[in-house]
Amino acid sequence: MSGRLIGVGTGPGDPDLLTLKAVRVLGAADVVAHFAKAGRRGNAWATAAGFLRPDAVELPLFYPVTTELPRHGAAYGTAVAGFFAAAAAAVEAELRAGQTVAVLSEGDPLFYGSYMHLHVRLAPRWPAEVVPGITAMSGCWSQAGLPLVQGDDVLTVLPGTLAEAELARRLLDSPASVIMKVGRNLPRIRRALAATGKLARAVYVERGTMERTVTTPLSEKADDVAPYFSIVLVPGWEGRP
Amino acid sequence: MSGRLIGVGTGPGDPDLLTLKAVRVLGAADVVAHFAKAGRRGNAWATAAGFLRPDAVELPLFYPVTTELPRHGAAYGTAVAGFFAAAAAAVEAELRAGQTVAVLSEGDPLFYGSYMHLHVRLAPRWPAEVVPGITAMSGCWSQAGLPLVQGDDVLTVLPGTLAEAELARRLLDSPASVIMKVGRNLPRIRRALAATGKLARAVYVERGTMERTVTTPLSEKADDVAPYFSIVLVPGWEGRP
Repeated sequence: MSGRLIGVGTGPGDPDLLTLKAVRVLGAADVVAHFAKAGRRGNAWATAAGFLRPDAVELPLFYPVTTELPRHGAAYGTAVAGFFAAAAAAVEAELRAGQTVAVLSEGDPLFYGSYMHLHVRLAPRWPAEVVPGITAMSGCWSQAGLPLVQGDDVLTVLPGTLAEAELARRLLDSPASVIMKVGRNLPRIRRALAATGKLARAVYVERGTMERTVTTPLSEKADDVAPYFSIVLVPGWEGRP
Repeated sequence: MSGRLIGVGTGPGDPDLLTLKAVRVLGAADVVAHFAKAGRRGNAWATAAGFLRPDAVELPLFYPVTTELPRHGAAYGTAVAGFFAAAAAAVEAELRAGQTVAVLSEGDPLFYGSYMHLHVRLAPRWPAEVVPGITAMSGCWSQAGLPLVQGDDVLTVLPGTLAEAELARRLLDSPASVIMKVGRNLPRIRRALAATGKLARAVYVERGTMERTVTTPLSEKADDVAPYFSIVLVPGWEGRP
């Protein structure tokens, strides 16, 4: 019995959007690892919970508390690198014991997912597989029924953490955009959209495909309070054939 | 009985990557529409076939033959617009008869999919729903085990049909890129990657998640022959925490 590592995309939140492959992998895994805030279980766990073996071992990987550290400082980088090294070691101990370890990943594992930090450390030494998941952005534009790109359109995916001028420059240079990680960055995102004349077309989706989800033109959203799980869509397609 | 329209993402090709929701919708649809070349059935049909009701009615929507028309000319636009109008009319006839019509869409319906041409014409008048699918690009980078973007990385999705200088400009301006619609555009894509110093990092994936799939560094692919179902990935992430 050799250990196996499997990164499993759990999709945007609705358990019905798990793939058949993800369901099969989840139902067979000996150990189920998931990234979460200290003492919590995240959305990936909530999505996957109904599909796990009753005797599966839960391996939570709790992010270090880094809120007091500057996000681009050396101390932050050291804390985060140390955390991913420790998480990989915890997973590797299970692999050495011959276990099949499924690592839950919201959305798609290799698209802004924490799983990739384990993959780069462990895949060179262990059999590793990645099961793709529906991305959060796909869940959001599907729920909104919003055609995003067609034909020769370019799509740019922008983290909302970018500086305002950089956001504006890239919005202007792309027919269609998706802005991720909205949360506390919404006021800056709104200003960048207004400056580029794209605010009227922007659609705001909160908690896409999950309970209490919200879809609204961003221009009609009265406040700038947004949870981390919110996305702004700027469609590039305007009904042409 | 009121008609219902459902765009169903069939994912990158492997039937195992259908979502639970897609499987349920496919198993309940009265009519299953799919876009295809004249007289053929495409990949979406091959992926979905095993999940359809035995008595489901197949509604093929055959693309017009436009190879002799210049791609950005007026005649091309007219032919294509006429085709989508006729396809929407054919689907609407089924909706009027009270049928539930599932429209198959490779990858994700609202991400470069033909389904969106039906959606914009019919969703204002009929109950319509979109079931997201795993995109081809997700299937490709998962199969390659290639972490694509992390943290504040920007991702640009580029159609391989863009002009060489435009491809190069955008490749240079984005830490990570996905180039779709490679096919006969591969020589130009290769030159743009070489000109921007990114050829060595580019990964070529052909028929991702399907039988006889190929994954190789683009620099090691000896020829410039590529099927339509091929993608070039330029990862932005270099192992940092």
